[in-house]
Amino acid sequence: MTEKNKNTIQCRSRLRILSGDLIALGPGKVDLLESIGREGSISQAARERHLSYRRAWNMVDTMNRCFKEPLVISVTGGKGGGGAELTPTGKRVIKLYREMENNANVAIQTEWKALKKLLSLENLRG
Amino acid sequence: MTEKNKNTIQCRSRLRILSGDLIALGPGKVDLLESIGREGSISQAARERHLSYRRAWNMVDTMNRCFKEPLVISVTGGKGGGGAELTPTGKRVIKLYREMENNANVAIQTEWKALKKLLSLENLRG
Repeated sequence: MTEKNKNTIQCRSRLRILSGDLIALGPGKVDLLESIGREGSISQAARERHLSYRRAWNMVDTMNRCFKEPLVISVTGGKGGGGAELTPTGKRVIKLYREMENNANVAIQTEWKALKKLLSLENLRG
Repeated sequence: MTEKNKNTIQCRSRLRILSGDLIALGPGKVDLLESIGREGSISQAARERHLSYRRAWNMVDTMNRCFKEPLVISVTGGKGGGGAELTPTGKRVIKLYREMENNANVAIQTEWKALKKLLSLENLRG
């Protein structure tokens, strides 16, 4: 939570996709995928998301096992001798998830405006 | 997670309303409000939601402090000598939250159908 959030009232929609017992996708996993796409490496992406390498690797492994095709693959060569990149399926999954998030946020606005009016502002820092 | 969920792929939308540092409302708190409405008592509702009394009381206290008017009030008399009930604001908050949840779920269906096709069925128990 950033300093800014301490002064605001907000509504967050978090989507979680479950495949049986496993969380195939959720906000943390999608953030991680986007970081991998940017950084080209699981270890760099883990650092960006404040995760241990082990944790990030397990998240990638879970996602790869939950989808028919992997979302992230290893690549060899380049600076540092290897890295990771998003597959076309990985890119598509991010896009669909972000669209769902966005559509959900649009869909809740009318009730959210009504609910917001019932909230007190007294907990917020001045 | 119930036995049934172990065999399914599903997408859950969870809405969390933040008032500064506090979680004013989320799935667990709304479930608790509904239980209080049914049971007429925080302790009975806590039992129904598998929460300690202390935890349930703290959740109610947070909600009451986050809204301009309390969502739950104590009532005296009746069997057991006292209980709790939802205020009109409490009932309205549940209704708005459930509508938001429902609208969000409707809004994500197109992308969810596309995403579902990319998921493997191999993790699911037969």
